[in-house]
Amino acid sequence: MPFMPVSDSMFLIGETREHPFHVGGLQLFKPPADIGRDYAEVFYEQLMATTEVSSDFRKRPGQPLAVMGNLTWIIDDEIDFEYHVRREALPSPARVRELLAVTSRWHSAPLDRHRPLWEMHVVEGLSDGRLAVYTKMHHAVIDGVGALRMMMRSLSDDPDARDCQAVWAPAKKRAKSSIVSTTNTSALDLVRGAAGAVKQIVSIPPGLLKYGRHALSDPQLVRPLSAPHTMLNVSIGGARRFAAQTWSMERIKEAGKALGGTVNDVVLAMCSGALRTYLEERNALPDKPLIAMCPVSIRAEGDQNAGNSVTALLANLATDKPDPLERFSAIRDSVQAAKSVLSEMTPAQRMLVGALNGAPALSAAVPGLVDRATPAFNVIISNVPGPRTDMFWNGFEMDGCYPASIPIDGVALNITCTSSGSSMHFGLTGCRTSVPHLQRILSHLEEALVQLEESVA
Amino acid sequence: MPFMPVSDSMFLIGETREHPFHVGGLQLFKPPADIGRDYAEVFYEQLMATTEVSSDFRKRPGQPLAVMGNLTWIIDDEIDFEYHVRREALPSPARVRELLAVTSRWHSAPLDRHRPLWEMHVVEGLSDGRLAVYTKMHHAVIDGVGALRMMMRSLSDDPDARDCQAVWAPAKKRAKSSIVSTTNTSALDLVRGAAGAVKQIVSIPPGLLKYGRHALSDPQLVRPLSAPHTMLNVSIGGARRFAAQTWSMERIKEAGKALGGTVNDVVLAMCSGALRTYLEERNALPDKPLIAMCPVSIRAEGDQNAGNSVTALLANLATDKPDPLERFSAIRDSVQAAKSVLSEMTPAQRMLVGALNGAPALSAAVPGLVDRATPAFNVIISNVPGPRTDMFWNGFEMDGCYPASIPIDGVALNITCTSSGSSMHFGLTGCRTSVPHLQRILSHLEEALVQLEESVA
Repeated sequence: MPFMPVSDSMFLIGETREHPFHVGGLQLFKPPADIGRDYAEVFYEQLMATTEVSSDFRKRPGQPLAVMGNLTWIIDDEIDFEYHVRREALPSPARVRELLAVTSRWHSAPLDRHRPLWEMHVVEGLSDGRLAVYTKMHHAVIDGVGALRMMMRSLSDDPDARDCQAVWAPAKKRAKSSIVSTTNTSALDLVRGAAGAVKQIVSIPPGLLKYGRHALSDPQLVRPLSAPHTMLNVSIGGARRFAAQTWSMERIKEAGKALGGTVNDVVLAMCSGALRTYLEERNALPDKPLIAMCPVSIRAEGDQNAGNSVTALLANLATDKPDPLERFSAIRDSVQAAKSVLSEMTPAQRMLVGALNGAPALSAAVPGLVDRATPAFNVIISNVPGPRTDMFWNGFEMDGCYPASIPIDGVALNITCTSSGSSMHFGLTGCRTSVPHLQRILSHLEEALVQLEESVA
Repeated sequence: MPFMPVSDSMFLIGETREHPFHVGGLQLFKPPADIGRDYAEVFYEQLMATTEVSSDFRKRPGQPLAVMGNLTWIIDDEIDFEYHVRREALPSPARVRELLAVTSRWHSAPLDRHRPLWEMHVVEGLSDGRLAVYTKMHHAVIDGVGALRMMMRSLSDDPDARDCQAVWAPAKKRAKSSIVSTTNTSALDLVRGAAGAVKQIVSIPPGLLKYGRHALSDPQLVRPLSAPHTMLNVSIGGARRFAAQTWSMERIKEAGKALGGTVNDVVLAMCSGALRTYLEERNALPDKPLIAMCPVSIRAEGDQNAGNSVTALLANLATDKPDPLERFSAIRDSVQAAKSVLSEMTPAQRMLVGALNGAPALSAAVPGLVDRATPAFNVIISNVPGPRTDMFWNGFEMDGCYPASIPIDGVALNITCTSSGSSMHFGLTGCRTSVPHLQRILSHLEEALVQLEESVA
């Protein structure tokens, strides 16, 4: 029974029924042309053929009920696969709307700490004939980027490959795929998940924090505690809403080129426009601009140390500006300023900035505090680049890959994006009570992209 | 914000992720002949037309996170129906087996304490064309009998009635049905749910317990702490397995008549035979007979006081006897002895016996204790008579009605039965880890009934 690193155990100690700390992903697959109507059963049977299980999928907390102190990991020899891997179906008429409704519920339920901390749901019944797979895993075991990378390793870029293994296969057993090449792996490392940043922050020695504040003396930077209070910055309940949609990467790239910014700038501008409309509809748009916390990983050249490579920047979403072009410029400048400061820092300094920017996330452990404190940021927006080519699992083409992440007390909405092939996938995870009609943000994201496109047409 | 009675709040304070304290029920319905393939949608829409909500379906804990002390009830004005009432579907091929697998998972998940403490799942996709409805409600709000009674009040004995309301309608709004007549209501009161007994027990003034011990000096009675330790008497995890099946009431009645016993004696003898086979298969049958805790309600004539009417008797299941006839006699004698002692008592004395018989259930609050302590009983077996006629909901004929109940720490299996029309429905709820292959007990129940039938043929 090895003791857990503090960075792992924090996610178990801080977890309550109301704040489950697991990351999830919803994947959509087009079945191969030559398959029958029992495609879900075929997919499930192929998954279940993978009987060797890596240790991440076998570890569970040694004291499942402990709320304080060090925890140990136990490695289970036997896995109750029927429990962990579940066949599900959608009520008719089964559109993506119904898929998102059940995914919201699955993402709300805490994992059973008496078992290895993961679940996979294989979902049939979408009337468009696609198969859905929702996977979740506890954050004490893996972060969002790690989960995405692991999921991708189980896929292949070859539509004819039929030797793909389930995600729980030990690494050497997984099918070889281009995504595990060094180049693509480092692409995945560029930007990391929100919860990953929080994970780094909790392990910072307090004495270093004072030193970190010097790094923030640049006046161009968004500083902590400058965010307005919004309806998104409240105590959250345990239930979630999940919404997801795919955009053409081509459209986003072209908008970026025309506007003189990056793909990530366009993603932030889409989020900004959508949140502006969403809050306006509720007479809840603050005068001051919304601030987004964006987890980033910026490594020094050749730095192989994974531990110190995560930080968080604060981006000004410029939601106070009605003009989309002005908004885009303000967002781009704010991100560039943050990145340029970060690029001049040592890895340790970057981590300290991240700690200061992300620290309020830790207040989740103090119930009620967030309703009174000034928020450091209003929303978490994370952009995790995925594979550059279309991916397959034993002939099933991955057609959507939506991260389901972790809203925290005080920050009721998390937007995480990932790309694959020619698509950009948005996953929105919100507290069910505090973020009503979350799915409307999807149409507002499209409207915001159209606005950007029209402003340079 | 009224303070909760201690008997309600105990069920919230004692609840952990591992021991959710909710009662549930799985109902099967045959759609009316003239309905289309969208029968589930029709059923759901008719449910949702009931917008008035009784206070039991609107109350939630005032301090959802409190683990100690008095709790208050808050009555919500607004209900998020889309959250509480869920459309679900089964993966294909959808047999009852698949229905029981998903019901097991739904019954494992704790209710969200930030909302009124109930959920309803409307389930389509059974290949035999039946519709399933799984309902759950927190035990702090209602006990198993109350839940069954409430469910029955929403039904009608008239197949042509189309004015049935959802179960959450205030009582006066519900469709009139024979089940609410005085006669049928008192039939429901004859035997009450296991958790109901526990509820009474926790409110007994400690000084009275000494007096209650005198009631146990009769040597014919099964006394507490005489049960053997078995594989069923261990600490339990949070996940459940649920298995259910219907038997013909005619068969059970005829067996009872031929054997000189009651319907309830046959039910206990079926359970005894099934548990004997189940434990034998695992080389885990103890030499001493298994003891069942059977919650009962025996009121003094004309006693209208609901509070003091619940007790629990301990039945000798005679699992040490290989001969089914000898086993039946021993069970019947043991129940008769317990009932005859109870019939000579005042209601207060009966309650005290129940307290002594059921008290170990409370040790669930002390983790780990059950693995060392001698069990007072090995299994909970509850038999709740239901309506005597077939029942309908807006033309949907109820074809099955299976109680999903509460296993507790130290007692990993709960068998609850209920009748309707000419059927006897068994619902088995077990800890997923401690009671492997729970569904096999269903075939053992049938084998045990055949054994009884053959022994008198």
